[in-house]
Amino acid sequence: MNYTAADVKKLREETGATFADCKNALSDSKSWDDAVKFLEARSAKKAEKMISAGRETKEGGVFSYVHHNNRIGVLVELNCSTDFVARSEAFRNLASDIALQIVGVAPTYVNFEDVPAEVLEEARKTIAEDPSLARVPEARKADAIDGKLKKQFGEQVLMMQPFVKDDTLTVGDLVRKVIADTGENIVIRRFSRFALGE
Amino acid sequence: MNYTAADVKKLREETGATFADCKNALSDSKSWDDAVKFLEARSAKKAEKMISAGRETKEGGVFSYVHHNNRIGVLVELNCSTDFVARSEAFRNLASDIALQIVGVAPTYVNFEDVPAEVLEEARKTIAEDPSLARVPEARKADAIDGKLKKQFGEQVLMMQPFVKDDTLTVGDLVRKVIADTGENIVIRRFSRFALGE
Repeated sequence: MNYTAADVKKLREETGATFADCKNALSDSKSWDDAVKFLEARSAKKAEKMISAGRETKEGGVFSYVHHNNRIGVLVELNCSTDFVARSEAFRNLASDIALQIVGVAPTYVNFEDVPAEVLEEARKTIAEDPSLARVPEARKADAIDGKLKKQFGEQVLMMQPFVKDDTLTVGDLVRKVIADTGENIVIRRFSRFALGE
Repeated sequence: MNYTAADVKKLREETGATFADCKNALSDSKSWDDAVKFLEARSAKKAEKMISAGRETKEGGVFSYVHHNNRIGVLVELNCSTDFVARSEAFRNLASDIALQIVGVAPTYVNFEDVPAEVLEEARKTIAEDPSLARVPEARKADAIDGKLKKQFGEQVLMMQPFVKDDTLTVGDLVRKVIADTGENIVIRRFSRFALGE
């Protein structure tokens, strides 16, 4: 497509990609939306690569947020691989966004994998007895139960929650975005949330 | 004893008692040390009275401390009975002192009663097999074991730890001092301590 310098600037602001990447995406795409999708897919692929590389995440930081009336507070540990990224603005902004999310939406777990097996098993049983499942063919029943399970626990799982500041993203999407931007794996290790008297 | 206005001032600074209490303590006591002891005993008695009154402690606040390098952080909930005390300087200073203590000394439990029964039982068994106990008369053995148990877990129990800023006090003493000063029961409800990568 034909594009102007203003388009490149706008695309950079929208996607956070580099100047060269935005230029290439625009010249190689048929439309604006295609260019955005291309860059998003590229960013997701980069994030996956960083996550699956399995590099140790022993750096990072401990961050807190306490509401001004002292009635609610959050402590969160966010890990990455180098002190350089730990001190970056992107990493610190992510930590602050995550703390805000935890204050607002009160998740119970960081990842779906953190839901205890016995809790999952109990929920799986209840779902299996649900009359709506009777109409699902036997071959697709296990998948249907898993889907309902993820939906049910998704609200309690931080990484699966819609991000409070932009609900077109999940918190997991937000983390993967910063992974792609910083080029380093980032892991939410643990959190505590205290609400006064709760 | 004979005393001057300067003595009253000094005693107030040392004990935190009121002007009238300090004057009375000095005029009724034979020595400076007696006056200090009298006021301390009075304060302890007042604290015990507040604690045993069993008034609900549903106010207070959540406080955090994060070290400037973000490698360690603490979240603590401190309860009292009224919003008035929750907003007082004495209460806020106590919260800050407790957070500092947790950062520095890393307790595991708030109170001795929070140590799980099975952990205590295990430790009790190990202590009972200690050869040094063989010399203790049977009638005093249970007390001796309890003493060793409290000593062993005292290091892990926040309320029993020597206060980092003044090791002539335990954290429990510090809390009781603020209870006497504010005239309201104060309870350390819970805490979290995250050290990066621990």
